[in-house]
Amino acid sequence: MTKHHYMGPLFTDFYELTMAAGYFKQHMVEKATFSVFIRNHTAKRDYFVAAGLEDVLHELKNSRFSESDIRYLQTSGLFPEKFLEYLKKFRFSGEIFAIPEGTIFFPDEPLLEITAPLIQAQLFETFILNALGFQTMIATKAARCIHAADGRPLIDFALRRAQGTDAGIKVARSTYIAGFQATSNVLAGKIFDIPLSGTMAHSYVTAFDNEHQAFSAYARTFPKNSVFLIDTYDVIEGTRNAVRVGLEMQSRGDFLVGVRLDSGDMADLSCRVRRILDDAGLDYVKIFASSGFDEFKIADVIQRGAKIDAFGVGTKMGVSADAPYLDIVYKMVRFRDKNIRKLSPGKVTLAGRKQVFRRTGPGGCCLEDVIGTREEHIPGSTPLLKKVVENGRLVRPGPSLPVIRENFRRNFADLDEKYKASGLRALFPIRLSTRLKALQDQTAAAPARRRDGKQEKYHNG
Amino acid sequence: MTKHHYMGPLFTDFYELTMAAGYFKQHMVEKATFSVFIRNHTAKRDYFVAAGLEDVLHELKNSRFSESDIRYLQTSGLFPEKFLEYLKKFRFSGEIFAIPEGTIFFPDEPLLEITAPLIQAQLFETFILNALGFQTMIATKAARCIHAADGRPLIDFALRRAQGTDAGIKVARSTYIAGFQATSNVLAGKIFDIPLSGTMAHSYVTAFDNEHQAFSAYARTFPKNSVFLIDTYDVIEGTRNAVRVGLEMQSRGDFLVGVRLDSGDMADLSCRVRRILDDAGLDYVKIFASSGFDEFKIADVIQRGAKIDAFGVGTKMGVSADAPYLDIVYKMVRFRDKNIRKLSPGKVTLAGRKQVFRRTGPGGCCLEDVIGTREEHIPGSTPLLKKVVENGRLVRPGPSLPVIRENFRRNFADLDEKYKASGLRALFPIRLSTRLKALQDQTAAAPARRRDGKQEKYHNG
Repeated sequence: MTKHHYMGPLFTDFYELTMAAGYFKQHMVEKATFSVFIRNHTAKRDYFVAAGLEDVLHELKNSRFSESDIRYLQTSGLFPEKFLEYLKKFRFSGEIFAIPEGTIFFPDEPLLEITAPLIQAQLFETFILNALGFQTMIATKAARCIHAADGRPLIDFALRRAQGTDAGIKVARSTYIAGFQATSNVLAGKIFDIPLSGTMAHSYVTAFDNEHQAFSAYARTFPKNSVFLIDTYDVIEGTRNAVRVGLEMQSRGDFLVGVRLDSGDMADLSCRVRRILDDAGLDYVKIFASSGFDEFKIADVIQRGAKIDAFGVGTKMGVSADAPYLDIVYKMVRFRDKNIRKLSPGKVTLAGRKQVFRRTGPGGCCLEDVIGTREEHIPGSTPLLKKVVENGRLVRPGPSLPVIRENFRRNFADLDEKYKASGLRALFPIRLSTRLKALQDQTAAAPARRRDGKQEKYHNG
Repeated sequence: MTKHHYMGPLFTDFYELTMAAGYFKQHMVEKATFSVFIRNHTAKRDYFVAAGLEDVLHELKNSRFSESDIRYLQTSGLFPEKFLEYLKKFRFSGEIFAIPEGTIFFPDEPLLEITAPLIQAQLFETFILNALGFQTMIATKAARCIHAADGRPLIDFALRRAQGTDAGIKVARSTYIAGFQATSNVLAGKIFDIPLSGTMAHSYVTAFDNEHQAFSAYARTFPKNSVFLIDTYDVIEGTRNAVRVGLEMQSRGDFLVGVRLDSGDMADLSCRVRRILDDAGLDYVKIFASSGFDEFKIADVIQRGAKIDAFGVGTKMGVSADAPYLDIVYKMVRFRDKNIRKLSPGKVTLAGRKQVFRRTGPGGCCLEDVIGTREEHIPGSTPLLKKVVENGRLVRPGPSLPVIRENFRRNFADLDEKYKASGLRALFPIRLSTRLKALQDQTAAAPARRRDGKQEKYHNG
């Protein structure tokens, strides 16, 4: 297992290949631009955290049809030999503009735009949506948890109930981008150099004759790194056992790191546990909590006065349970030097190659985003999409994970609190530039091809 | 990319390794049994379809700590050298009983039981939960779609919004087990020999000067396999264009396979499209529909009289959107020849090594399940858990995917309709055998170790 697990060009929907064969037969080799963005139907997210680009770039760079891929397509009997010959030499030679990982962006803003000969641009749709959609969804969910925790450290516990093996690994990376402090996922720790965290399960405690023995044995194995799980039998009794062993450790010159709660009313229990620990002089022992946490439960227990120092955040965050998919789409916005616009109700696609310009105020705080044309210049703003691939080659090596994480930290700090709170729903101001608006109007005004005179859903112009 | 992507023993939660180090130091080498089952808190699922076992067996068989794994653990500075030496020679040598893939089972029934030296049994918890949990969740969701479609073919369209790459591949396999006819996922088609399906996207239609040209070009590339997407501009106009090209194909001796709807009121539109096709003599042309389908939307449009011949089922199924995780757990039920029982409210764990006995009536229909002890024999019933691994070795090669699919088909046919309907909530009868009940009582009656006299949450006995 490495940083990137190359999937190959067959990681695609079958229609991408049949369309490609159609284009090939019609000699439709001109360049097209596709734009990736997230529609916000469900209104469950007001901002997003870009993630997944590194995977996309790695996949495109390496994409080749292997001999066995070609043989497999041959057996379908559907594809002409000439098209298969073309696939054998297939390489990505296009251009990619993208918002860097860790950057905050908003609904309808292009996250990535790809310009390449039509077949190439079409073939990568599925991989790009899969990679950017899932990782952005998780980085966003993680950012919401970070905001709710208000400075308390969070640890990723999602691996066991993540949707598959790749999801488990990507959750660790995406949550680390959004500021999680550590992960329980050992493989992700190894691959991405993320700090590890974790101590014991209930089964550990039950494997011993009693809880005191279990803690005591653990303390001897990990004198510097013990966190005792105190709710296997009874939390109060468990805290007393932790105190006994904690004091024994103290007398040996070691210090108990913490105790962990994994059930019950966390706000109430954490206060009772804190008092027992403090009364015993163990005020340095931290209280960790896990079990069912997401941004909503974290905010709730904190608001109710919980004395919790750090949270283990697992399943609900790892599958983004309240919104388990994003309405992320990949739309053709330009072909053969003509811009293309989609107009069906509630599903506008902005024609043309675009740029997002972020206007910032004093101290760097974000004021508004202007979606403009790729070429224009908006004074006092920073363009968010960077050219990352040119002629099929990386423009420069991608940023390291710590750099991406720091990019998120700065971005999130620059976003006003009112846009982060999940209840208030203040919407960050986004507008279209005058030039982009004009371009949309020109596109819409292009000659209609429909014969019945009704408004078209799509326009080429 | 192969059938199984080996993850290695670091695909685990960090606490599995720290607990293992603790057990190692205490010489706790005796055998433990862990039981995997699904609690049904949410009550959103009444039955489950077993899936994911093949992955588990492949992973356990191959599991070795590589040199770089050991080096990585060494750098943490947490683990004693002797323990790392032990990990270098680590092999799975235990026994596994499991319900075969494709079999229907119910909440609280053991899906898999693993008996092995404590450290081995503990280390695989994370992988086993990840593999069985996700694939069972998707096979179950797919079965619900199959039931709702009432005989109409379903096609997996989930790849682009699946939670990561592995999820996309596993969704294709799990849905095929549950009776889906094909997938859009080319890589899964290649790996698992699943039929492929898919034709064109809206971008294909917009890349041509008009819809008629787009259809016409496609028909020339795929004269035997054309399905036209008819809602890019206007469904009725799209149908007329499909009819024109369909008749042209007919005059050349070819036949249009179908048209696809991807938006709008499917019940109403499909009836109007059917009439236009029939009036033109194209009654053999099928109507496919996609966009937002899951078991609820499929049932709804059918109930409203939709003339849809096949459904493309994507995102909502592929992430199990209404229930995106299962409460699947891995609990120690026996250690050192003592059974272990958990008693906390609403979270009972059944002590001891178990078996599920399925009693069937005339024609094979399922009457009830009895959860019993592993050793007992219940006349007129079939034990569901099979021994699949003994002394670390596969007892026999696993069934092929078509065999697993047929197992599901028979299982599902044998389950009465009333247990499949999502609204009615008739619960399939499940009881504990007399012997298993007695074993629970004996376990609960074991000497309490708590000093305050309150009821324990866990009992060893």
